[in-house]
Parts: sequence; C-alpha cells; structure tokens
Amino acid sequence: MLRQRLRRSRGRVCVGSASVKAFASDNYASAHPDVLAAMAQANVGHAVSYGADPWTARALEVLRGHFGERSQSLLVFNGSGANVVSIRAVCRPWEAVICADTAHVNVDEGGAPERIAGVKLLTVATPDGKLSPDDVRSRVTRVGDEHAVQARLVTITQSSEYGTRYTPEEIRALADASHALGLALHMDGSRLSNAAAGLGCGLGELAGELGVDVLSLGGTKNGMVLGEAVVFLDPALADGAKYLRKQTLQLASKGRYLAAQFVAMFEGDLWRRNAAHANAMAARLADRLRENPAVTVTQRVQANGVFAVMPLQAADVVRAQWPFYTWDETKREERLMCSWDTTAEEVDAFADALAQACGAMSEAAN
Amino acid sequence: MLRQRLRRSRGRVCVGSASVKAFASDNYASAHPDVLAAMAQANVGHAVSYGADPWTARALEVLRGHFGERSQSLLVFNGSGANVVSIRAVCRPWEAVICADTAHVNVDEGGAPERIAGVKLLTVATPDGKLSPDDVRSRVTRVGDEHAVQARLVTITQSSEYGTRYTPEEIRALADASHALGLALHMDGSRLSNAAAGLGCGLGELAGELGVDVLSLGGTKNGMVLGEAVVFLDPALADGAKYLRKQTLQLASKGRYLAAQFVAMFEGDLWRRNAAHANAMAARLADRLRENPAVTVTQRVQANGVFAVMPLQAADVVRAQWPFYTWDETKREERLMCSWDTTAEEVDAFADALAQACGAMSEAAN
Amino acid sequence: MLRQRLRRSRGRVCVGSASVKAFASDNYASAHPDVLAAMAQANVGHAVSYGADPWTARALEVLRGHFGERSQSLLVFNGSGANVVSIRAVCRPWEAVICADTAHVNVDEGGAPERIAGVKLLTVATPDGKLSPDDVRSRVTRVGDEHAVQARLVTITQSSEYGTRYTPEEIRALADASHALGLALHMDGSRLSNAAAGLGCGLGELAGELGVDVLSLGGTKNGMVLGEAVVFLDPALADGAKYLRKQTLQLASKGRYLAAQFVAMFEGDLWRRNAAHANAMAARLADRLRENPAVTVTQRVQANGVFAVMPLQAADVVRAQWPFYTWDETKREERLMCSWDTTAEEVDAFADALAQACGAMSEAAN
Amino acid sequence: MLRQRLRRSRGRVCVGSASVKAFASDNYASAHPDVLAAMAQANVGHAVSYGADPWTARALEVLRGHFGERSQSLLVFNGSGANVVSIRAVCRPWEAVICADTAHVNVDEGGAPERIAGVKLLTVATPDGKLSPDDVRSRVTRVGDEHAVQARLVTITQSSEYGTRYTPEEIRALADASHALGLALHMDGSRLSNAAAGLGCGLGELAGELGVDVLSLGGTKNGMVLGEAVVFLDPALADGAKYLRKQTLQLASKGRYLAAQFVAMFEGDLWRRNAAHANAMAARLADRLRENPAVTVTQRVQANGVFAVMPLQAADVVRAQWPFYTWDETKREERLMCSWDTTAEEVDAFADALAQACGAMSEAAN
Repeated sequence: MLRQRLRRSRGRVCVGSASVKAFASDNYASAHPDVLAAMAQANVGHAVSYGADPWTARALEVLRGHFGERSQSLLVFNGSGANVVSIRAVCRPWEAVICADTAHVNVDEGGAPERIAGVKLLTVATPDGKLSPDDVRSRVTRVGDEHAVQARLVTITQSSEYGTRYTPEEIRALADASHALGLALHMDGSRLSNAAAGLGCGLGELAGELGVDVLSLGGTKNGMVLGEAVVFLDPALADGAKYLRKQTLQLASKGRYLAAQFVAMFEGDLWRRNAAHANAMAARLADRLRENPAVTVTQRVQANGVFAVMPLQAADVVRAQWPFYTWDETKREERLMCSWDTTAEEVDAFADALAQACGAMSEAAN
Repeated sequence: MLRQRLRRSRGRVCVGSASVKAFASDNYASAHPDVLAAMAQANVGHAVSYGADPWTARALEVLRGHFGERSQSLLVFNGSGANVVSIRAVCRPWEAVICADTAHVNVDEGGAPERIAGVKLLTVATPDGKLSPDDVRSRVTRVGDEHAVQARLVTITQSSEYGTRYTPEEIRALADASHALGLALHMDGSRLSNAAAGLGCGLGELAGELGVDVLSLGGTKNGMVLGEAVVFLDPALADGAKYLRKQTLQLASKGRYLAAQFVAMFEGDLWRRNAAHANAMAARLADRLRENPAVTVTQRVQANGVFAVMPLQAADVVRAQWPFYTWDETKREERLMCSWDTTAEEVDAFADALAQACGAMSEAAN
Repeated sequence: MLRQRLRRSRGRVCVGSASVKAFASDNYASAHPDVLAAMAQANVGHAVSYGADPWTARALEVLRGHFGERSQSLLVFNGSGANVVSIRAVCRPWEAVICADTAHVNVDEGGAPERIAGVKLLTVATPDGKLSPDDVRSRVTRVGDEHAVQARLVTITQSSEYGTRYTPEEIRALADASHALGLALHMDGSRLSNAAAGLGCGLGELAGELGVDVLSLGGTKNGMVLGEAVVFLDPALADGAKYLRKQTLQLASKGRYLAAQFVAMFEGDLWRRNAAHANAMAARLADRLRENPAVTVTQRVQANGVFAVMPLQAADVVRAQWPFYTWDETKREERLMCSWDTTAEEVDAFADALAQACGAMSEAAN
Repeated sequence: MLRQRLRRSRGRVCVGSASVKAFASDNYASAHPDVLAAMAQANVGHAVSYGADPWTARALEVLRGHFGERSQSLLVFNGSGANVVSIRAVCRPWEAVICADTAHVNVDEGGAPERIAGVKLLTVATPDGKLSPDDVRSRVTRVGDEHAVQARLVTITQSSEYGTRYTPEEIRALADASHALGLALHMDGSRLSNAAAGLGCGLGELAGELGVDVLSLGGTKNGMVLGEAVVFLDPALADGAKYLRKQTLQLASKGRYLAAQFVAMFEGDLWRRNAAHANAMAARLADRLRENPAVTVTQRVQANGVFAVMPLQAADVVRAQWPFYTWDETKREERLMCSWDTTAEEVDAFADALAQACGAMSEAAN
C-alpha cells in the first residue's frame, strides 16, 4: 500500500507515448479501439439525456443478459463511485461494511466510504486479499448494541487487489455465511472480467448465481475509456438507487457515451478477450520472474497482476524505463500489472532488463 | 422547475437517431467531431493515470492561458461534481451558500449540496435567475450567531438557468459586495462559453479578472462528451482540493480522455464557435416565436435558451416531434434550448410547426 | 429572526440573579423545584447506564400513558437533537423535509439538519408560522425525478415559533394531506405543553390521535433542567432509532437523571400547570400591551409568546432592565416570552415600564 | 469489546436501588451530592441561555485555571460529543485520526466519528490500550497521495480504556512525534482525573503543558450528573468550534446546570478526591483478586478499572449479584470498574464472593 517509489521515477520516464509501456497499472493502458469506435458511432444526432437513450437501454439489456432478468444496473463514472453507490444503497446510517484491510474501498478511495457513504469499515487482515466466512463471522459482534456499528454488508474484491481470485465455491460460502448473519454481499468487480476469463466462466456465474447481492462491474481497467456499473443482483436493494447515483454525482448527462462503451465491451466477448490476454501476460511475466533467483513471486497469479519481492536497486533501475509501483515498501514487494495491450515482447524485455539489473548488482557485490 | 410534461412525451418520440433534433436540452446534443477525434488521438500507448499524464498537463496549461497563471484547475466528470467540489473547497461545516432559488445547485442536484457537501443553501427569489448585490446582502444575517449557519459563498450561474447573462459590471459588483462581507464568489459556468461568446470577450475576462474566486467551467453542454473543470481563480482556495476531488468521486483514472477533450475545446476557439452558434440559433428562435401571437417570450435571450409561454395543447403537439421541457407548469412556461448542432432549418421548421399548431387551435376555437 | 439587539444589551443587565426576570426566552427560566427534587431522589446507589434503569422504564411508561401503548420514545438532551433524530429516522438520503421558513429546524439549528441529518429543507413562507395542507402540497413536486430531492416528511411546530397554535382539526388535515402524498408528519413539540394547556386537552390528543407520526416532546422550556423526547407515534418509524440516538450523540450515560425529570414533569400535571401559567402570563402581557397605543401585537397569542411592534428606542430602554430579543429588525417586531415562573407583577411592571418609555419618547417628540 | 454477557444478567439483578453496587461501569454510579447541591443553588431566577450566564463564565474561568489562560473550553453533554466536536474542529474532510483499536472513539461511539465527523480512523493494535510514537509514525503513510486519507490527529485515552496510564514523559513524546509529523494530539480525558490523581499532578500538567492540543475533559464518570468539556489547549484550533458544538447538537440551552457541575467538580479538589478514591478501590480490588489463584489480573491497575481473566462460570455466579461486563469473550477477560462511591466493604465482599464461587467450582470439579 506504499506507493511512494513510483512518484520519484515519474520525472524520468516519458509515459504517454506509443513506444513506452508500463507495468504500473491497467489504468495506464489506453482504451480498446472497438470502444472508441462505438463512442464515435453513438456520436450522431440528439439523444435523451441522463440515461433515457437507446444506447443505455441496449447496455442495460446486455447487462441483464449477463446477470439475469431480475438484475438492475446503473451506469456510473468510476469504480469508487460504483462502490460508494453500492454501499449507500445497502447500509443504513448505523450499519458497517466488512472488508479486507487491503481492499480498494479501505485504502484507495480517499475516505469516501466514511465521508460520503458515512460507514465504518470493519477490516480483516488477510494473507492474500481474500476474505473467508470465518473472517466475516469474526467481525459480526455486539449485535443489537447501539454503542457499536452493526455489520450489514460484506465486500470482496474479485479478482483481488493481490491478483488472487475467489473460486465459485468460496464466493458461495461467503454469500451463505453473510446471508445467514443477515448481511448482504457486495463484490468489487473492477477486475471481475479477469476472474471470469481465468475461470472460463461467465460474469453472471460469479455473481448473482452464487449469491452476490450487489456488484461493482468494472470496465475501465479492461479497455474502456471510463465507465463502471452498479449491478443489483438483488433488485430489492435497488430501491431508490437512482437517487443515490445522482446525489453521489455519478449520473452522466450524455449517457449514451458510457452506454456505447458497455455495449462494445460486454455485448460480445471483448471483455473476455481483453481480460484473458492480460491474464496470460501476467502468467508469462510470473514465469519469467521465477527464473530470476533474485526475485520471489509472493502471490498466486490468478488475474493480471504479479506481486514480487526483488532487490530495490534493481527494481529502481528497471522502473526508470518501465514504470511500476511499490506495493509494500517494508517488504520490498513490487506490483506489476498487465493490461489488454501488454505484449509478450514487452514482458520478455522487461524480465530481461530486470535480470540484467539484478545480475549487475550481483556482480557489483562480488 | 416542473419538468413532468416531457416525460409523458418520451415514449412518443424517437430521439437518438440522426434525423431527430430536440430543443429539450443542450445535453441532448452529440459531441463535436473534433472532440471525439482528440480522444482518438489520445488513445495510444500508456499514460500515467489519475491526471499525471501529458494531455492533462497540456489541458491545465490551456486553462491557465484562459484564467491566469495563478489559477489552478481540476478536471472532473460533471457539473454537479464541479459545483460540489467547489463548495466543499470553500465552506467549513457551519458555512452556507447564497444562490438564486432557480439555481441548478438548488433544484437539480438531487440534494448533493446538502448531503454530500453538507451545506445549507440560502436562496433568493429572482425574476430572471440573476442575483444582485442586495440579494447577497439580504442573506448575510446573524453573523457570529452560532444558532445560524454563516454565509460564506455566493454562487451565480453564468449564463443563468433562464438564459440570461450577467454583464461584467454586474459580476464585478457582486464580487465586490461578496468580498466586502467576507464571502467568496463562485460561478457555475456550465454555460460560461455562451456568455463569453455573447459578450464577445474571453472566458477569463468573465471570471478571475472580475473577482470570481472559483469557477465550475462547463464543457459537456457545449459539445464535449463529458467533462467540466473546477477553476480556482483564488489559488488559496485550492488547498486540499485534490483530496476533495478524489473523495467526491470525481477523479478519472484514465485522465487523458477528459484532458484531450479540454484541449480540443479550449486550446483554439471551438468553445466560442460552438457557443456563438447555439446563441445565434436561440436568437433566431426567439425572433420567430415573437412572430407568433399566441406565444410570449418571457426572458431576455442572451445565451442558448428561450423561455416562452405558449398554449399547452399546441406545445404538446409540437413536443411530440421536437421534444422540449416545461419549465413552470403553473405559468405554462416552456424552455427551448439550442445547441452547437442546431440548424437554422430546424429552428424554422420548429417555429413553423408551432405556429401551425397554434393556428389549428385557434381555428378549432373559432 | 434577527436577534442582534439583545446581544448589545447583554452587558448592561445582570441576568443570573434571583431578582431579575427576562422576557427573552423560556430557556432563561430556571427549572421547577419539583424537577430538581426528582433528580435528587434519583441520586442514590447504582443504576444501569444508557437508559436501562428503573427511572427510564418509568418515564417511558409515563410517555406511553400519554401517547399510547404502541408509541415508542427515546429520551434525548435537547430539542435540536430530538428534531435531528426524528428526521434521520424517517428520511432516506435523497428525501427532504417540508417546513415553515420560520421553523426552528430551518433557522436555529446551526445547519444540523443539512450537515448532520443530510436533508434539504423545503420551506414555505407563512404569515403565522403555521403550515397548511396546501403549503404541503405545493412543495411536493417532481415526484420520481432523480434530479430533485423527494419530499418525505412534513414538520410543524406546536405551538409555533410565533406563539400561534394549530387546532386539532388543522393537525388532522395536515396529517391526512401528508399521508395521502406518502409523507410522514413530524411535530416539533418543544412547546407542545403550552398548546395542550391552551386547548385544554391531553398531549396525546394533539399527536398520535390526530395522525402525527413522530414528535419531539419538549421539557426544557417548560421547567426541566434539560431533556426532550423523540416519540414515535408510528412505531414502524422507530426501527433503528436507538442507533441513531447514540450516533447523533444524544444518549446520556446516566440516563436516570433525564428520566427522573420526565417523571416529575409528565406523570402528574406539572407540565400542564407550568404551561397554563406561562400562557396566562402571555395573555396578560398581550392585554396590557394592547392598552399601549404605541405598541401593536402582531400575532394571535395562543401560547407563551407575544410578538409586538413597538418603538425601538422605548424597547431598548426597557430591554436594559428586562432583556428580550428582537424578532425581525426590519419590522421592529419584538418577541416577549413568558415562563412557568413569570409573575403577574413582573408582567405589569414590564408593561408599565414600556408605557413609560413610550410616553417619554412621545413627550420628547412634542 | 464483547459485552454480551451482562445483558443476559440484567434481568436478574436489581440495579437502581441504594443497596446494590455494580462493578460494571463508573457510569452506573450516582452523582456526588455536592454536584447536585450546586445545581440546586444555580436553580434561581433567570439566566441568559446557551452559555452566556454567570455560572458558565465561572466554570470557564475554573477551566482556564487548570489549563492556562490561553486555553478555550466549551461545555458539552457527553464524552462522545466532546470527542466528535474535537475531531470536527481539527480535521478537514480528507483528514484522518490515529487511535488505538480499543479506543472508545473506535468501538463505542456508534459510528459517530465516521458518520457525523466524517473521518476515517487509522487504528493500531496495542497490548495495553496505549499508543507509542512508533505507532503514530506507522500510520502516517502516503503523505500527499490523494487516494489515501491524510493523518491529521492522534487521539489517546488518558487513563486508557484498559485502566492503564500514560506517564507525562510518554505524552510529551507522543506530542513531539505528532507535531513533528504535522499532526495534532487529542486526549480523550473522560477519566483524566483518575490519571492525574494517580500521578499526583494537576490536570493541566497532563495536557497543554505536555503538548496536548485538544482535550475531552470528563466529568460524568467521576461524579457529575452529566457534562464534559472540549478544552482547546491550542486556541488556534478553537476557531469556529462554537458553531461545531451547536451543529453537533451539544449546546445546552440552560447552560448554567452544566456549568454549576463543573464549578462544583473542578473549582476545589472534588475531582481529585473522587478519582483518588476510585483508584484506591481498584487497587484494593486488584490486590484481593491476585489472592485468588483462579484469577489473573491482565493489565496494570493505574486508574479505576481492573481487567482480569477468570472462570466464566464463577464470573456469572457473582455477576448476578454484582453486575459487571465481559471485556473480551474470547479470552474470558472481565472488566471491573470502581467509582467514587465504591466502598472497601463492597470490594471485599465482591472478592470474597468470587473466591467462594471459584472454590465451589473447584470442588465441583474434584
């Protein structure tokens, strides 16, 4: 969660040109050309604003195709927005959210859950960013005691911030445990596509069919310009959600441009192709790093991210050319993210450069 | 402020195809092709996320060109977001905002100013949507009395929700009156371009040079896909604003796509061309409506909107073909908005259709 | 609502000694001796904290006696706290509260409704501080439109901030109109006792029996040290309210000391005796003021307050001795409040002093 | 932090009569007679409301006597209110509070810090409820990173929720470490009197003189009816605090009754006598428990609380007669609190009863 190293290196690299690729974030990647083409196709004539347009109607139909006829979706601008709208839709003022302490909602949303949604987060330390049913049960305490917030929502990230993945059985167990305690289950699916692609299943098979009640469905990191969706698998939770989206400042006036991207991404299999490619690149990168004796891959590589401990000096040499973030400075753990546009050649060149830097260090030490 | 009539008509029209134009909202219009082209040009390679990319650097430089080297700008998703970030940056928890009762911030932001920014709005009824220095002074009461909120920010809309415009002198007088009372002046400039085009001046000449402290600069309604900016003319007010943008859920991950639009719109004169055209179409429309004895134009036409009282039955006949909103049902006042893409032929066809409908009514009455 | 005059005079009077009485506020009065005696009687041994004590049990029983077996009450510290807990219990984040623009909740709670409860207040200008069913209906607009807050709660003040009173028929009509629109009705009853004493009816006859859904029941202004109650006449609205009381910082740890006061005030008829006396003193004061040709009583005197226009110079002369607040500086309207401990002699002496001051002025002018 | 056991026992005991004492909470104790007498003495004539009365003036003078002429104090209703007003006064919307995970503000304020103050709490696990400078430093990360809340305030509890105590040197070190990082230091002093009595020093010697910036000064637990104060040792932080007190619903209308209690408690040495007695009773209780081989005292006894692991069955037998709370159900750790009114006979009788219950269990097991 310490990301201070990249900042130093930003001045040294020229990110923002076609010839440089980063392993810093899937948000560094551009949008897939099909997505921009869909926006251009939608750029014609007048359309009713605020989501009452034909493109939005079609996007919502596409999402119902994935998540079931009963599901109700709202398009929003970004992932934090999707998460905050989800939380606001489920939690009353005295209710709280259980999450892993590494969850995006806990460490990367600038206090919006607390300040904007007004909830307390009940965090659990985990080795791999994944909650277990026992983790959930451990944070449901003091039920009925007005001095304590009352747990109401569990949020899991699929795939997780550590690049790991919940199996369908794990999600089902979490949903069952949550529901047995009267809690709802939210999935932060900013990288749900990567999980589904990795498991070879559909998006809906990882959500409503397993008991997930609300989903933040990601688009941006998988090749959209911008756009996420709040998907209410339990439609009872969607009551009033349209007001919350507006009030949470997540309602686009020219809705068609969000919607067209969703159609491009989720009507066919672009979501799966992009995610599968990013996953494959991460797997290749992990394989290459494992060849490097100075590097230890620290997490299972089940999505598009690779976490690895490596010598800081070597990391910094390579980082100057291929930007990436330090995840945990105290452990010297680095985070390497692959994208829909990462190429095998880039993975190999990066791994070679890192091996060379490590070797140079090793020689210098001899 | 009553907008229920269009809703009924939505089912009857096929908005969302190239051949149908609406006078409902400048948000119904598409984006200007140059804007989409700029997004496509930015769609290459990797770029640092969250606004640390070259396109954002250039956009901010463009904005400094308009608003002065000391100004500081933050790009955001939408106008409500820009307004709420502006308010949060200026007001402490017990401070309040003075505005016209017709202000977007009062009637069209779903309670976000109260719930998200946490401020009370101190409203003033106005005939034309414009505040005067006396209006401001009338709402600064009980200074130092802890039982009452303390006025801190005045917000004006330029051009106003009624299509009217503040002169530079009026803005200067408002800024002086506000500053004399220890208040800051915010301008909701979602249609600032229309005002500047109408006055034949630059954007900055209507903002910082006149004493405006914070500006919500609009892009969407004038031909962008989406995007607004919070411009701090008084840089002291920008302290911490980047945290507020993030927390208010207005920070785009792939910032270049917002930024590229700003460059396309504001580096050259696209903003002025689009706005001047929309203004001209509104002027033409008003002229044509004034020829119609059954119609009364109710406001000065100084931007891209025309407000007019007309027979409801005739309005509804035309509305089925050319959607537009009722502004005030009790007065039978309708709102007609022109856009960068409205054509003279469309204006004329609309006016003719309305004249015909009014004539038919008149005949039927005879 | 302008109260700046008293502040100037504060330095000149010696309020806070037994010999000086004020007409400034019923909050200036001391507590009734029976109330303090009840606190002293409760001051024995240990008691479970946070309201699980025998005194609280008895106080709640007393309140059920007044408001019905189905009613549910929560004791809180003050009137603003009671109002904010009431609002939070009823309104979801996008819902709004309709009130008179003179309502305490609008002008005297320091922005707590907006900042702490997060609601927008939809105000109505009234001549006498009282809402009508038409006032309510006028503010229920744009139902289902996500750009606008959705009215959910009507709040009326009984007796009103102007010392006027709703008849039972008026309350019933407001409840019916509210319920027909899907709204709940809240009564700010910080001076409910004065209204009930004046009408010669019970407290419950003015609340649940007429369709009021939630009540802020006042104790402080009628002779308690401190303490108010939120009374849910509709018990369905009380769901979760205990959490809101705690979170809104209104849960006393040593609950017995609030409860004992409620028992002292409401088990017998102390509430009625105190209120009837204060009402009688206000009536006497109004009668005496009407004898003064320089003074005009501006509102019907139906509770313990008298509103009157009078010469400012004379008012200031008397104010130095008998503090009271200016209500509306622009109209030269003064507010004179009587308390459970105001005496007829004090009323007469005050009226005489004012008459003398007016006479002196009149002479000086001749 | 698990308190479910007492709830079960509540039905079985008759707390609320003079003859039963509890070790459940210092909030179960009554008020000291001198405190009630002071309230009765203040119950005379009229006094300006909302704190502009002579009693409040005197109370504030008394507090300046303890905390220095530059200090500024606000009287409030309760400890949660004092903490939330303190936090709101210091933290801007994106700023966060560092605290022990056992802190009252984290576990016993019903989510008010998050929902009402809008801050995220950055918690640290501690063995004894006390933060160290290294704990503080460990939570100051990602400075300047808008995706993360920015630490601004450290809050420590003196004496702590575990009955432990910071030495003056420890507080000074925390203040220095906090200030070096640009953070302010808040002390939750709901039991500050117990710490000062234990250390034999003055209240101010533990606060402003050591670098504490804001203090929640407790009165209720040490023998008041109700009442706490927010003491700004750094007066710059008090700017606007009076508005926050009102908005946070913590401003009493009849302020003299809070103030008179403060005078009674803090003008002379009642605060010290009460606290020293409670401390002595806790020490006696700990000594007696250490004689019991079945019981382990788990924390240093430096204030008025004793934490001990004991057999659950024996605990429950005694609890039925002498109510007390389970602190941590998983460890079988119980919390025993002494008050200003606990007697040595009660301590001994309790210890004897527990020894007997443990013995009975032991015999039953043989």
